Amino acid sequence: MRMPVGELFNPRSIALVGATDKSGWSISTLTNLRTHGFRGPVHLVNPRGGVVHGEQAHRSLSGIPGQVDLAYVMVPTTAVLPVLREGAKLGIRHYVILTAGFGETGPEGAALEAEIVDFAQENDLTVLGPNGNGFINAAADVTPYGLPIPSPLLRGSVGVVLQSGALASSVLGFAQARNVGISLLTSMGNESLVTVTDVIDYLVDDPATKAIALFLESVRDPAAFSRAARRALLAGKPIVALKIGRSRLASRTAQAHTGALVGDDNVIDAAFRQLGVVRVRSLEDLIITAGLLAEVGPLPGPRIGVVTPSGGASEIIADRAEDEGLELPAFAPETVARLREIVPVFGTVQNPLDVTGYVLIDRTLLGRALEAVTADPGVDAVMLLSDLPRVAPPDAAPVYATYSASAKRIAEAPMPVVVVSNVLTDVTEFGRDVQRQAGFPYVAGGIEHGMHAIGAAVRWGRAYHAAVAAGDAAPARAVVEAPAVERGTGVWAEHRAAALLASAGIPVVPGELVHDEESAVAAAVGFGYPVVLKAAAEGLGHKSDIGGVRLGLSGARDVERAYREVVAAASAVPGAGRVGALVQPQRGGGVELLVGVVRDPAWGLTLAVGLGGIWVEALRDTALRVLPVDAAEVRHALGELRGAALLRGARGAEPADLDAVADVVARVAALAESLGDDLESLEINPLLVRGSHVEALDALITWRG
Amino acid sequence: MRMPVGELFNPRSIALVGATDKSGWSISTLTNLRTHGFRGPVHLVNPRGGVVHGEQAHRSLSGIPGQVDLAYVMVPTTAVLPVLREGAKLGIRHYVILTAGFGETGPEGAALEAEIVDFAQENDLTVLGPNGNGFINAAADVTPYGLPIPSPLLRGSVGVVLQSGALASSVLGFAQARNVGISLLTSMGNESLVTVTDVIDYLVDDPATKAIALFLESVRDPAAFSRAARRALLAGKPIVALKIGRSRLASRTAQAHTGALVGDDNVIDAAFRQLGVVRVRSLEDLIITAGLLAEVGPLPGPRIGVVTPSGGASEIIADRAEDEGLELPAFAPETVARLREIVPVFGTVQNPLDVTGYVLIDRTLLGRALEAVTADPGVDAVMLLSDLPRVAPPDAAPVYATYSASAKRIAEAPMPVVVVSNVLTDVTEFGRDVQRQAGFPYVAGGIEHGMHAIGAAVRWGRAYHAAVAAGDAAPARAVVEAPAVERGTGVWAEHRAAALLASAGIPVVPGELVHDEESAVAAAVGFGYPVVLKAAAEGLGHKSDIGGVRLGLSGARDVERAYREVVAAASAVPGAGRVGALVQPQRGGGVELLVGVVRDPAWGLTLAVGLGGIWVEALRDTALRVLPVDAAEVRHALGELRGAALLRGARGAEPADLDAVADVVARVAALAESLGDDLESLEINPLLVRGSHVEALDALITWRG
Repeated sequence: MRMPVGELFNPRSIALVGATDKSGWSISTLTNLRTHGFRGPVHLVNPRGGVVHGEQAHRSLSGIPGQVDLAYVMVPTTAVLPVLREGAKLGIRHYVILTAGFGETGPEGAALEAEIVDFAQENDLTVLGPNGNGFINAAADVTPYGLPIPSPLLRGSVGVVLQSGALASSVLGFAQARNVGISLLTSMGNESLVTVTDVIDYLVDDPATKAIALFLESVRDPAAFSRAARRALLAGKPIVALKIGRSRLASRTAQAHTGALVGDDNVIDAAFRQLGVVRVRSLEDLIITAGLLAEVGPLPGPRIGVVTPSGGASEIIADRAEDEGLELPAFAPETVARLREIVPVFGTVQNPLDVTGYVLIDRTLLGRALEAVTADPGVDAVMLLSDLPRVAPPDAAPVYATYSASAKRIAEAPMPVVVVSNVLTDVTEFGRDVQRQAGFPYVAGGIEHGMHAIGAAVRWGRAYHAAVAAGDAAPARAVVEAPAVERGTGVWAEHRAAALLASAGIPVVPGELVHDEESAVAAAVGFGYPVVLKAAAEGLGHKSDIGGVRLGLSGARDVERAYREVVAAASAVPGAGRVGALVQPQRGGGVELLVGVVRDPAWGLTLAVGLGGIWVEALRDTALRVLPVDAAEVRHALGELRGAALLRGARGAEPADLDAVADVVARVAALAESLGDDLESLEINPLLVRGSHVEALDALITWRG
Repeated sequence: MRMPVGELFNPRSIALVGATDKSGWSISTLTNLRTHGFRGPVHLVNPRGGVVHGEQAHRSLSGIPGQVDLAYVMVPTTAVLPVLREGAKLGIRHYVILTAGFGETGPEGAALEAEIVDFAQENDLTVLGPNGNGFINAAADVTPYGLPIPSPLLRGSVGVVLQSGALASSVLGFAQARNVGISLLTSMGNESLVTVTDVIDYLVDDPATKAIALFLESVRDPAAFSRAARRALLAGKPIVALKIGRSRLASRTAQAHTGALVGDDNVIDAAFRQLGVVRVRSLEDLIITAGLLAEVGPLPGPRIGVVTPSGGASEIIADRAEDEGLELPAFAPETVARLREIVPVFGTVQNPLDVTGYVLIDRTLLGRALEAVTADPGVDAVMLLSDLPRVAPPDAAPVYATYSASAKRIAEAPMPVVVVSNVLTDVTEFGRDVQRQAGFPYVAGGIEHGMHAIGAAVRWGRAYHAAVAAGDAAPARAVVEAPAVERGTGVWAEHRAAALLASAGIPVVPGELVHDEESAVAAAVGFGYPVVLKAAAEGLGHKSDIGGVRLGLSGARDVERAYREVVAAASAVPGAGRVGALVQPQRGGGVELLVGVVRDPAWGLTLAVGLGGIWVEALRDTALRVLPVDAAEVRHALGELRGAALLRGARGAEPADLDAVADVVARVAALAESLGDDLESLEINPLLVRGSHVEALDALITWRG
């Protein structure tokens, strides 16, 4: 159920239920509301009444005169439901529940939480939490939030959604240190009613928000998340996500911590990329990247002109640019000519540009170089290396003037200019003041994290432009209609799986199912030697593991012996039905791929392509995509493989026809989708690729249930 | 030539030559000396005399009464040599040359620089620079340094050596923000006399220095660097290096910038690891890692117990631990039992440990948990997640008391405790004061960089303990004496190369060199079919490229035809000498490796091992080692391959006998070394590995010149 949260985040009056002088949460929440500009009444409720935080408290919600829009609930666990009952009677529709002791503690708590969920749903209540610290709506000066808010609270355009209470203070502190203002911050708690997805939906519509930063332990409802992420992308609001659980260890930890399902991380990685969600690995990158995206939006391309006052920094930037897939193209001749007149003779005119230490003597040097580089026709955006001042000198006026002049030049540049500082240190109070007064743009903190942010802005820009071009169409189209076949159960061995593939237009090596030696030889003669013989029986999965495959048979005697052997091997498998053998012509050469579609418990059918045969396990070189995909997307996936060079024709081998490969793989994906809920997995290994010849040499289908 | 720099860095009197009110460098240098505690006289020299910086200047060095230990030279380029001449006459032996315009600008400048080098060497002068900003000897309060030093200058135990002037301010500023004190910082300039290696040697002997941080554009003299790095390792002084030029682009940039040779980055990576030099990729990691290593030294092992007040942070830590090769083992039963009594019931006792937000209520919680975890027998070191306070509350006394108590507990712990903060923000003035007054240990800045630093401390500890165990022995021993063979010239084709390998005890597939069809068939019969036939002629390199190889020959007719074909193919190659063919038994199965030794222009003979055949180029899966190596080091190298699973026996294949493989590879390396300066490269591709059967199937030797 999608929960609209606009009223929750914008109440005009608030009651703090369970307010007490003994609770740090109570003190913080009231202090936050009183010091960060909340303009409505705040009522305190304590069952014993009396004076709390120096004010007269009400004994219950009923005692409050006038309308209450939001109740902030800090009472003991078992007292929460009674508060909701009373509130519902009084017409209070929005709640933050800070109280812990619910689903996160075990079955007993989960039962209490379920009661709250039922009651809220029956009575149309909006509930954030339980076990969450509340929210900070900085854009509207509404701060019902249970922990101290580090000062100053910087208002801005980054919306922050956290599946963690404890990290909120770190995130707020870091955002402040980077001079990144927030629009809304929510600490989600158990998400029993209002979910991350609900908040994303709100932020997409919120005019104050330009970028969204997420800390995620798990994506509870991938379908809803995907829908919200796609809305955000089409709205031009980038989502940056720190999703933990990359390591096996972290997913174990998260399960213990929240009881939430942490999916296979590689699938999440693929899904995020397909949705245009920028994934980061640190809190620093989360805020620095979201801050940059909120300020500059999508960068038009990966070709970056770099202007610095330092050779050493230029070289670090060049290294990091390559990591991030950015290009630093050579400057155009006219740019070089202009720069030669600007840069001192002992400097070198190149990209990245080091205008030299003469910036200390000639303060206009960097600005003039910037102007030349932003005019370069071969560059999509410019990175300017520049620190904000840290300490006010005795006469600060020239500092303000210098930064104002730079700000003007940047604003007037014909392309985006991204400012990055040398190292990640705090923006000081003086630096913040200079930035504001001079109108100087956002400064990404340090080359290390700044280059990551620029790379993210380019990648996100690509996803954004592709999404806008595709419009409201689904992210990718299936390319074939699936054949009308009967669905199965259990495992379909090769001969049945192959027939299904063939009926969907997927090229499959020819084969003949035989049940005696004579027919085997006849089939072999029909195909021409050499041939392959494989045991065939209902439910027979991995044939090679049981000795059920014979390759390179080149005569009748070989075929007869092989038939006896593979049938004997398969017959020894418990539960094997009628055993026969599949005869196929032997193929050789080319590159063997694996193409598999498996059902991820969270994200559904997921395509894996990679090098086949023994290389699958030895190299783990596969690329994933959540379905649906089209052939273009499959080509991207093939390009991600480390072994892509083999497909392009390593050492003089014939290059693969990648369009032909992508077309077949996309058909496999479309077939899998058309089989819908019945399918558990579908695997072709190997798919032989030799030039434009693409052919499935083996296949296996597993049905659900 | 090794240059002793102890006197250079510790002068008792300094002359600033070229002092003028018009120069920012001049103003900064004098200000730095006067405000950062230099206790000796500072004399100003200006050819026009008069008042400079409010003081009477001397017209020349000769006019200065008394001894001058160090001249800091800021005169125009052509005036530098005359200053040295005058100084040498006066007995001034140490110089910093800030002046630019030398080798970095082109041939003319290089000639001027050569004159200075010659004069200095003839007169036994020590010169830092030219084109460098000088140094900051914080340990001795000597700061002849041409740029403003951000306040406060924190004295400590990290020595910093920079092949970049402009980055020094960023490094100083960042070190200050992290509360990392420095012992010495040098800005090397052109290194025409004093080199990075000289400064490392000084820092190894400097009692104030516990860790060394380098920013390197190039390693000019790998042999000298290796010697100094090994001294540092044996002395227990970790070197952390940010070496640029990882990308092709950066190495181009650095060449333009300094004219220095930037070697192949993969070789540098291998060399650094072999020398125990910790390589980092960012300025933040450079300082954070060096700061941690200076404080805690080597960590005893990779098993880390983690104590945090946050579930979200725990999960980020778990992800980053896996990246860094750290283990977070399950706690021992007795630790779990102790923690169950400490952690609130709704918490989960596991590693990483989240003691829960109740730290806000019970300030002793984190400390008690820390005590329990540091007693765990299965843990090598503990990571404590804890921020320093940022802003002083009205009553700061409890803050000091809390941090003092923690500091005491950490100091008394039976194993190293590394403190890491949540995010990378500055240590504020208040935080720094609390840290100092409470004796609270170093705080690594943020989980992202802090986990990197912990990983580095474990890796460096491993290198350190291995070096100490090996003592003054060379880093690794060759395992075989080389055969007394004649050295060659040009390219040695397979048959000669194979004979050389065999004479060094390296197993080689048998082969017979034949010069007519009849002998070819006889040889084939002798080996038994199938056989391989390869064109053989002096100077014939890549035989397959010219169609000079035939595989799988299974009869006399095949062999005869193959002989005619490969001889015809090879005879068509211009300059081929007498052409014959090499007959070998055909081998199959197993895994094919490439083993090559090539001469790196900077680092000398370097071993590469990797997957052989087409996989070499397709997967670029090779591990490098600078020679010498022993078999143990080769085993490590094999373990680094992505395709290592193939050697361990993927999909039921026979596992390779890795000791046998390593032994053969080490023999190849030893042979290459014994061939010394004459060898350009030696390559075996493939080296067939099937269980314990290891055999070179093809080989090529290229001689120098």
